[in-house]
Amino acid sequence: MVCAVVGLGLMGGSFALAMQGYFDEILGYDLNPKHIEEALSLGIIDRAVEFEELKEADVIILAIPIRGIISSLHKLSELDLKENVTIIDFGSTKESIINECPANLRKKLVASHPMAGTEYSGPKAALPNLYENKVMVVCNINESGEYQAGIALKIFEQLNVKVKFMDAKEHDRHAAFISHMPHVVSFSIANSVLNQEDREHIVTLAAGGFRDMSRLAKSNPDMWRDIFKENKKNLLDSINAFENELKKAKEMIEKEEWDKLTEWMGEGNKLHLIM
Amino acid sequence: MVCAVVGLGLMGGSFALAMQGYFDEILGYDLNPKHIEEALSLGIIDRAVEFEELKEADVIILAIPIRGIISSLHKLSELDLKENVTIIDFGSTKESIINECPANLRKKLVASHPMAGTEYSGPKAALPNLYENKVMVVCNINESGEYQAGIALKIFEQLNVKVKFMDAKEHDRHAAFISHMPHVVSFSIANSVLNQEDREHIVTLAAGGFRDMSRLAKSNPDMWRDIFKENKKNLLDSINAFENELKKAKEMIEKEEWDKLTEWMGEGNKLHLIM
Repeated sequence: MVCAVVGLGLMGGSFALAMQGYFDEILGYDLNPKHIEEALSLGIIDRAVEFEELKEADVIILAIPIRGIISSLHKLSELDLKENVTIIDFGSTKESIINECPANLRKKLVASHPMAGTEYSGPKAALPNLYENKVMVVCNINESGEYQAGIALKIFEQLNVKVKFMDAKEHDRHAAFISHMPHVVSFSIANSVLNQEDREHIVTLAAGGFRDMSRLAKSNPDMWRDIFKENKKNLLDSINAFENELKKAKEMIEKEEWDKLTEWMGEGNKLHLIM
Repeated sequence: MVCAVVGLGLMGGSFALAMQGYFDEILGYDLNPKHIEEALSLGIIDRAVEFEELKEADVIILAIPIRGIISSLHKLSELDLKENVTIIDFGSTKESIINECPANLRKKLVASHPMAGTEYSGPKAALPNLYENKVMVVCNINESGEYQAGIALKIFEQLNVKVKFMDAKEHDRHAAFISHMPHVVSFSIANSVLNQEDREHIVTLAAGGFRDMSRLAKSNPDMWRDIFKENKKNLLDSINAFENELKKAKEMIEKEEWDKLTEWMGEGNKLHLIM
């Protein structure tokens, strides 16, 4: 089987590194010539191809931003793809991809979202074990072809991920809480410190807690703008839920309701009983 | 030299583990009999003592909550301590400790705050390398005796920390931004997810980003209530600064000002150029 990876950054590059030896050949496509060069020299892909040559592939991985995935699906729908091609997308939101997938490709597509990543990007950020033991959400699997679903599940087994089936709507809402809102919060923490006059003095005190809380603020702004745009409604809902808790805490501190505040923190402790 | 550690939890226990062999003897005091038992069996201290016996020590480390430090200083001021005793406190805020330190002990006290910790507590959480390469803030050092300052700096050299001298007022304000506000934020994230109907389903999606952002919400509520109480004004200031950034982000998302939002995230990226 020939696999083509579209997008040779952190996600696509890590996928190709983890799957070395599984496919007969790994082809690579990226709009950025520097990414192609790096992916070749790092041994991430066997051969760089033009978009049209993706029709040679049995499996196509779309590891690019959401709007890129949708436009690639439209371009792919006009190519003479293999009859049994399996297309797997790694988009961070799933509803719009599924809704906007051209009808003639819907059965070929297995809409997936690996819950893995780092704050870095590009082929050099790729890690062979990025997906190891992580969760792979697969959305609306009943709309994919049985053959394609089988191929994707075999690939995910090889990738050593834990597959969770989920409705796309539900996925997008959950992703807002678990990933998108925490990114907005982390950027807000970073900017609130940067806006202080003595910011350089403040960060000399940074220990592990602050590093963790501000790590996501290293993430790529263009990539996250696209995700926020795509998941606007759920994101605003999750920000509102967060703001509501913060407001409660602030009021308890202002009113010096210390016992109530302690209880509220005790509730927060319980999160780690379920994860 | 004999060292006594008051409070055998994460901070005091880790100090004692890191300083094995440096002192002739390490005495331990804790209000919790279980902590004493554990500290003895883990080899953290050589001998458990009563509070009164702290007068045998050349160096006394106060690794307990802020109010406990203040009341211990008052109790110590009534003991017949060694003439040249050095008292080092590890309190998370510094202004109230310095202001409320009995006058006869002010020169003996080196007010310090190690910028290190984990979300765990108790002697079993102690780590010999907890302080390694971390920052130790020392406040208002000019008010400590020269002899005591010298002893403390030698101990900190052995502990392998980077010493930063700072005014107590400034420290408390910085600590609010770098540590106290991020804790309130992390508890707010945890509670906002726990309040969702499908919370258990949501956390199945948790990856590294969410784990980082919710890790501080594992912290001990009693300990953090005391810190928030002590640093109320600075904490509210830092929460307001954070809320202000979050509000900006939310408005840009609502109004779909994507370019402005991207720029705002780009600003956040810069934090990591200075830390």
